[in-house]
Amino acid sequence: MTALVAIDWGTTNCRAFRIGPGGEILERRTSAMGIMSVKNANFAGALMDIARDWIDVPAAPPVLMCGMIGSAQGWIEAPYLHLPAGADDIAGKLVLAPDPRREIHVVPGLRGQGAAGPDVMRGEETQILGTGISDGLICLPGTHSKWAQVEGGRIVRFVTFMTGEVFALMRRNSILGRLMIDAPHDAPAFARGLVRSQSAGGLLHQLFTVRTAGLLEGMTREAAPSFLSGLLIGHEMAAVRELFAAKGATIVGAGPLAQNYAIAMNVAGIEAEFMPGEDAAARGLHLVAARAGLVR
Amino acid sequence: MTALVAIDWGTTNCRAFRIGPGGEILERRTSAMGIMSVKNANFAGALMDIARDWIDVPAAPPVLMCGMIGSAQGWIEAPYLHLPAGADDIAGKLVLAPDPRREIHVVPGLRGQGAAGPDVMRGEETQILGTGISDGLICLPGTHSKWAQVEGGRIVRFVTFMTGEVFALMRRNSILGRLMIDAPHDAPAFARGLVRSQSAGGLLHQLFTVRTAGLLEGMTREAAPSFLSGLLIGHEMAAVRELFAAKGATIVGAGPLAQNYAIAMNVAGIEAEFMPGEDAAARGLHLVAARAGLVR
Repeated sequence: MTALVAIDWGTTNCRAFRIGPGGEILERRTSAMGIMSVKNANFAGALMDIARDWIDVPAAPPVLMCGMIGSAQGWIEAPYLHLPAGADDIAGKLVLAPDPRREIHVVPGLRGQGAAGPDVMRGEETQILGTGISDGLICLPGTHSKWAQVEGGRIVRFVTFMTGEVFALMRRNSILGRLMIDAPHDAPAFARGLVRSQSAGGLLHQLFTVRTAGLLEGMTREAAPSFLSGLLIGHEMAAVRELFAAKGATIVGAGPLAQNYAIAMNVAGIEAEFMPGEDAAARGLHLVAARAGLVR
Repeated sequence: MTALVAIDWGTTNCRAFRIGPGGEILERRTSAMGIMSVKNANFAGALMDIARDWIDVPAAPPVLMCGMIGSAQGWIEAPYLHLPAGADDIAGKLVLAPDPRREIHVVPGLRGQGAAGPDVMRGEETQILGTGISDGLICLPGTHSKWAQVEGGRIVRFVTFMTGEVFALMRRNSILGRLMIDAPHDAPAFARGLVRSQSAGGLLHQLFTVRTAGLLEGMTREAAPSFLSGLLIGHEMAAVRELFAAKGATIVGAGPLAQNYAIAMNVAGIEAEFMPGEDAAARGLHLVAARAGLVR
């Protein structure tokens, strides 16, 4: 029996979960139909493509979605909620998608004060709730990595870093990328990048030394991407250490990127724990649905 | 009468000067035939396309070139010279291009110790010499902006920042660029970016606030590029202030970018002077040619 259809609908991907009465995940589906790929804003149709057989049934289960689907570019804009925010706060501010046939609820994003200006998230708040961590620092590495402080089950502060996107731009589109070849992760080069991030001159200068490392220091084209990654993640970590007086943090994820973040955290004196991230959004959506009374 | 044909041959442009016996510029030509556009490495042919009527004459004048033409991707690699380096040092290390018909000399680039690692330049050393400044701090803004300390007519230290390239990548290829429209420079937004660069969280976080400034702080799409520019140049300036204990510096250039650099310098407490940059390479090439005995 389906108690909830939970959808984590982001910019480039859509992940759908069929959830049972006890919160157990009965079925998972992943589609490349991110909101940027939905034609003519036909989100209702895209949802049916992904999960019709879960939804178009007698006694249809409730549907709860999170992520960029709730942005101005998505199906319906769910206005950002101010911090602090926990499951109850979010459950109280769900927005209904304009679907004439069904009740489809959307989780609002959060806004807070970052370190340098306002900061926002959409989707990550649900993953964070899904970790079940009620007190601590949580790291979600990625294109726009997020660090969130949770206290008493509520997100009280978070900060975003464009680390992953800047890496991708430098790798693919910059002059540095011309000196690189895709290759397996090079741990010593990554560590060298972490060390380089602690030197003088700031990031805009240090980035140029990725080039000179190849020209003059024998850095191979295969090692250069790992060096660049270490340099950028090292900068993120230096900021995190300054912003959050944390001895430890939980990384949501377990893949190679999470491993690299753990190394960078250790170098920065922050103890790292891992939590598998794959189902965090589903667990978070189930929690919010329960608090909103959509499931019992 | 032509005393010297001086060529500033970079990655994307080639600028040629016909210079008279007193160092005066008799004629200028600019071509988009940068070294990346030269087919089959036929640099001899490309040079003839640009300046045959200056060179293929009786009592042919000497030809001296600087810039990326002397790199591994250019006509002939002129190995980097170590610092400190002035006109005499450079004149003593000219390299001959492999042209069977003519003597064509190439200026070597320079290498030094930047702030975070080795640093290099090719072409800028000639512009710096061409300023005629024998003592002081010189700023060459651009894709890869350079700051060079000159003492007794010799370059003793320099540091490169990828500011211009990072701006272009963020503007054209990043998620931030989608929130921007090309528009005339917005001075208040630029100043806001300078101020933002002094806040916490580091550059990777502050870049994300370009997005939230649009979402939440009323930053217009037209103003956002100037805000981004101020943020990046502000970071460069903070590093410069830390690395060079300078009260003033000379900006080579006079256009809008140079003006913005001057504003950023003033905010950072560095007094700015301008020097037109258009002919600096030609003057530098003439100086080196004289020291090398190529011209009298």
